[in-house]
Amino acid sequence: MLRAAIAGASGYIGGELLRLLLGHPHVEVVAVSSDSLAGRRVDGPHPNLRGRSELRFVAHERLGAGGVRYDVLFLAMPHTRTMLRMPEYLALADVVVDLSGDFRLRDPAVYEAYYGVPHAQSALIPEFTTGLPEWHRKELAGSDRISVPGCMAAAGILAVRPVVEAGLVQGTVRLDARTGSSGSGVSAGSSNLHAERSGAMRVFAPTGHRHEAEIAQATGLPVRMTATGVEAVRGVQVVARARLVEGAAEADVRAAFRSAYRDEPFVRVVAHKRGAYRLPEPKILSGSNFCDVGFAVSERSDELVLVGALDNLVKGGAGNAVQCLNVRFGWPEDAGLEFTGLHPN
Amino acid sequence: MLRAAIAGASGYIGGELLRLLLGHPHVEVVAVSSDSLAGRRVDGPHPNLRGRSELRFVAHERLGAGGVRYDVLFLAMPHTRTMLRMPEYLALADVVVDLSGDFRLRDPAVYEAYYGVPHAQSALIPEFTTGLPEWHRKELAGSDRISVPGCMAAAGILAVRPVVEAGLVQGTVRLDARTGSSGSGVSAGSSNLHAERSGAMRVFAPTGHRHEAEIAQATGLPVRMTATGVEAVRGVQVVARARLVEGAAEADVRAAFRSAYRDEPFVRVVAHKRGAYRLPEPKILSGSNFCDVGFAVSERSDELVLVGALDNLVKGGAGNAVQCLNVRFGWPEDAGLEFTGLHPN
Amino acid sequence: MLRAAIAGASGYIGGELLRLLLGHPHVEVVAVSSDSLAGRRVDGPHPNLRGRSELRFVAHERLGAGGVRYDVLFLAMPHTRTMLRMPEYLALADVVVDLSGDFRLRDPAVYEAYYGVPHAQSALIPEFTTGLPEWHRKELAGSDRISVPGCMAAAGILAVRPVVEAGLVQGTVRLDARTGSSGSGVSAGSSNLHAERSGAMRVFAPTGHRHEAEIAQATGLPVRMTATGVEAVRGVQVVARARLVEGAAEADVRAAFRSAYRDEPFVRVVAHKRGAYRLPEPKILSGSNFCDVGFAVSERSDELVLVGALDNLVKGGAGNAVQCLNVRFGWPEDAGLEFTGLHPN
Amino acid sequence: MLRAAIAGASGYIGGELLRLLLGHPHVEVVAVSSDSLAGRRVDGPHPNLRGRSELRFVAHERLGAGGVRYDVLFLAMPHTRTMLRMPEYLALADVVVDLSGDFRLRDPAVYEAYYGVPHAQSALIPEFTTGLPEWHRKELAGSDRISVPGCMAAAGILAVRPVVEAGLVQGTVRLDARTGSSGSGVSAGSSNLHAERSGAMRVFAPTGHRHEAEIAQATGLPVRMTATGVEAVRGVQVVARARLVEGAAEADVRAAFRSAYRDEPFVRVVAHKRGAYRLPEPKILSGSNFCDVGFAVSERSDELVLVGALDNLVKGGAGNAVQCLNVRFGWPEDAGLEFTGLHPN
Repeated sequence: MLRAAIAGASGYIGGELLRLLLGHPHVEVVAVSSDSLAGRRVDGPHPNLRGRSELRFVAHERLGAGGVRYDVLFLAMPHTRTMLRMPEYLALADVVVDLSGDFRLRDPAVYEAYYGVPHAQSALIPEFTTGLPEWHRKELAGSDRISVPGCMAAAGILAVRPVVEAGLVQGTVRLDARTGSSGSGVSAGSSNLHAERSGAMRVFAPTGHRHEAEIAQATGLPVRMTATGVEAVRGVQVVARARLVEGAAEADVRAAFRSAYRDEPFVRVVAHKRGAYRLPEPKILSGSNFCDVGFAVSERSDELVLVGALDNLVKGGAGNAVQCLNVRFGWPEDAGLEFTGLHPN
Repeated sequence: MLRAAIAGASGYIGGELLRLLLGHPHVEVVAVSSDSLAGRRVDGPHPNLRGRSELRFVAHERLGAGGVRYDVLFLAMPHTRTMLRMPEYLALADVVVDLSGDFRLRDPAVYEAYYGVPHAQSALIPEFTTGLPEWHRKELAGSDRISVPGCMAAAGILAVRPVVEAGLVQGTVRLDARTGSSGSGVSAGSSNLHAERSGAMRVFAPTGHRHEAEIAQATGLPVRMTATGVEAVRGVQVVARARLVEGAAEADVRAAFRSAYRDEPFVRVVAHKRGAYRLPEPKILSGSNFCDVGFAVSERSDELVLVGALDNLVKGGAGNAVQCLNVRFGWPEDAGLEFTGLHPN
Repeated sequence: MLRAAIAGASGYIGGELLRLLLGHPHVEVVAVSSDSLAGRRVDGPHPNLRGRSELRFVAHERLGAGGVRYDVLFLAMPHTRTMLRMPEYLALADVVVDLSGDFRLRDPAVYEAYYGVPHAQSALIPEFTTGLPEWHRKELAGSDRISVPGCMAAAGILAVRPVVEAGLVQGTVRLDARTGSSGSGVSAGSSNLHAERSGAMRVFAPTGHRHEAEIAQATGLPVRMTATGVEAVRGVQVVARARLVEGAAEADVRAAFRSAYRDEPFVRVVAHKRGAYRLPEPKILSGSNFCDVGFAVSERSDELVLVGALDNLVKGGAGNAVQCLNVRFGWPEDAGLEFTGLHPN
Repeated sequence: MLRAAIAGASGYIGGELLRLLLGHPHVEVVAVSSDSLAGRRVDGPHPNLRGRSELRFVAHERLGAGGVRYDVLFLAMPHTRTMLRMPEYLALADVVVDLSGDFRLRDPAVYEAYYGVPHAQSALIPEFTTGLPEWHRKELAGSDRISVPGCMAAAGILAVRPVVEAGLVQGTVRLDARTGSSGSGVSAGSSNLHAERSGAMRVFAPTGHRHEAEIAQATGLPVRMTATGVEAVRGVQVVARARLVEGAAEADVRAAFRSAYRDEPFVRVVAHKRGAYRLPEPKILSGSNFCDVGFAVSERSDELVLVGALDNLVKGGAGNAVQCLNVRFGWPEDAGLEFTGLHPN
């Protein structure tokens, strides 16, 4: 059994990692940290784990105490703070999987533009591999530093990149991203109280959302993204628009998706003509590691509409991290990730 | 008191008309029709009207029976069927306010392209005035045939047209529209059951939604729209993107909105720097006749993001119809429309 | 115009008072206080009031500054703190309407048992009249100190008291109360974040909820109540059970309700045989001042089931307060309270 | 591998059975029937199964065609119709697990009273074992006919029976049951449209709900139950009240629960002093086979409040059926039922 630790395990992403790893056949979670909840049981903040774990949190600085090392360390810590302690984290484990945004962007100048602070460890950026198996499987198999993409970025990249790689679109990609409330985290403020957030259509990032930069980086195209909070706890959906190149048709788009994802265990192409679920719908993905992707072509224009959907805490975070781990260690890629999703839900 | 009738009063739009007109100081509702509920009390399908009305439905063909005429007739009947009987309707009342889509588009060819059938009464189209007081107040004051815009069209036109009129944008306008479930109507099918529709992000019209054509008609620009059903009963929000012309800046956009809507009783410009409600949010508009509009300019690009929000049954339908009536008869424009909206809600 | 002030106007109840009073034909709001938001516009915390008010908050201690007196002062301040300053409040206005729980219970010992602290101003308790017009209209017409009941208490009293007064039930009354999230207020903690509270069925008070004591006081019967938070922003529903006395039948129950509420403007008896809305449903009451009450009798037992529903911020708080004001000053009882409620919603 | 068939696999319970059995290590689903969807793929009505199954529905009468027999047949067919064909079903398989209500009640007279029709196969009733492993594990191990309890009945029985068995309560048990919309099934009518059902608190069965009879049968006490539809897709919660016998205290209740469920894999006792999740909450149980049970004792009375929660489609239906199968065949009881539930959700 691989011995794993999670730094920042009291938040939503940390809790989801714990849920998935407790069901993983090859991993044992040996330490979970939280400063605010040190000494407390994990099933306090994560009541779904009642009866499944007797673990207790330790303070962050107790990770590695006494010279203990882990086989793998997951970092579910805040952006801009994670990079400050990355050298220490790297010393604690053979493999480090970072779920913060600090090592996602390759260019420190872009990082500074989107995160508002200079990168504190830019020399470490090149050591990290992008944790998206669909597009980086080979590198991941040999990588000891993995940076998991942002939730909307993962959905956007998986939805857009096949047609970019196939040379079917050109020009600016425009995305409308919608997200549930869990993306704001367990320490969200009063504007995320139920009475304020329930039934919302809150355009919280009309421009400049950080995940925009990841999609631009992954596609090589200019990207404009708007992000809106809608009523859901879990779930991200992106709707992207891009201009088809001259002569490209729906069949080419379908072929590009099929070619890109034919053998992928966690990407399904959903582009039907009929039915309430004919395009990707996050509602049926809660808890699962699927990212569903689909598309529609207008008869009236040369614009292609692309849709991606996932559970922000799973394929958009903890599940994706576990999938990367499975790739890294050569295990079946769905180990610990077997849950199918619910309908109705 | 003006004597009003509503054809198709058992649906959601019809019920909302009834709610508003029962509270209107200058209107008496004298007849409401429904084929399926003929003889039944209106507070059956509209339980919010309990204690407020003793009216009963009559069958559609009983409207005007015995030679009765109405001062105003509201049509809340289905698209493509309304036009077939429009000559009869016009004979029943001095003023006809149509809430169907049949007389919204000026060009019968566009109608056919978007509605899938040839227009059956194209000669009558020019008689109708677009029922959007903010842009057609003068014509409405003298018009006896009024065609109320679609819900997403109203939000889109009110959000986009000021910058078009001010010459601040160019090229294609791209809209992402989100809507609550009441837009599907009381006779929606099993895919609108709560278990299927709850928490949905359903891209039901990735391309080709009918309201797209209305926005193109009102702005004179190419329009591409995607429509998604999200969790809400009432509420429409559109997020539009357009390219700013060279030299245009945020201050110009703000000035254009202020100029367009300074004296409007039902359009509020909401474009703040901070706060959960800094851009238009339909959640706080339920029941009110407001359309909130706002904007954001990216520092990184020449794209303008525009946002519009309204209650699809009120400013996107019945409330707008009542506002048109008020304009037509020279009453205070907010007569019967005083409700402010709720927060929290 | 009556000159009104609201102490504690930044919370949900305070905002609702403001919404209602801004639309009241005989009241002008001249001062609103909030310590945390002093100097800020009211449409910041209450975005639904945009375009309806230019008022700004003053600090609590500025109420009455310079010797200003108000015709009426509404207190929307926290329990246990309101009583401490009640003597000062009484000096500020001719009429004081208290929405806290501090002067609802007549017996200081009961207060202490339910609120956990001794009553600090028990000598003032007898000066207050219970602010429930349906059962205290005459006293309210002559009262300058009014204590508005708790939201669940109002629903419970209105649902249960008619059959108690008619001598139709005996023994313990058991209530199951359900409430939306707005009841927790704008300063609710992290357990009321959307991700935690959404879709909840949270039995937050299995026993001992404070409103239980008010219902017992109003009915003279032993009362046991359980309170559960369910998914809604606004809305309270109580389902009560009581034993029918020998010989009492459904017709007696119906007659008791009819007799109690025949002329009430804001209580509707809803007890139909069929239909989704055959018993009181808070969903269609948001924003309205109605309390719907109903009942069902089992064929299999001598138990009576009673149901009451209201909007906790309106008939369960601010609207009820305004209704009391209308009674006190002899205005039409629905002044400022005309809104009917929405369907669908 | 056990060869299983599901009759009525297009509904919500049938789909959930399919989801669970597709992940079961010892079961192969070889046939699924639906009259309306014969010939169609199962991932049409059950989009969560995309990529997980290529199965297609057959018409009901094709089950067993050509003399095929199944090792186990699950019946997810409507009440009152299931019993009519039970003899045929029994001929199709060695083990029959019925999820309808037709064989839950031991007394045909009680069945008729609650279901409104005489029982058509009362001679078969004694052959069926109640499919609740916690209270019938031994009989289930040897039974070839299993009748799975109703969803609210399962929650009610699991919450109430420990204190009954321990002799801690007496007199009438009163339950308030709340349920999500999936309980109404995929063929629910227009009153279950999202716009009508969203945010509801619908007292659809103030008295006389069928599951009441099951709880009475299992506890031997008089039971009165009220059922309300609240906002949720999945989830049932019951809050029960019963009178403690003289001298019984909280510690006795806790001991009774602990004793009853100490070794149960799917019942967790949740009765904490603090925290949003201190009592059973169905929100975190979606998709899992847990039934959480808890209790609270009032300081002011001799009443005990009991709470039970589960996912109506899993522990309240399909999951419970699979657990019974595991008991019957001697497999690990959680085979196919490993999913833990999500938080937040």
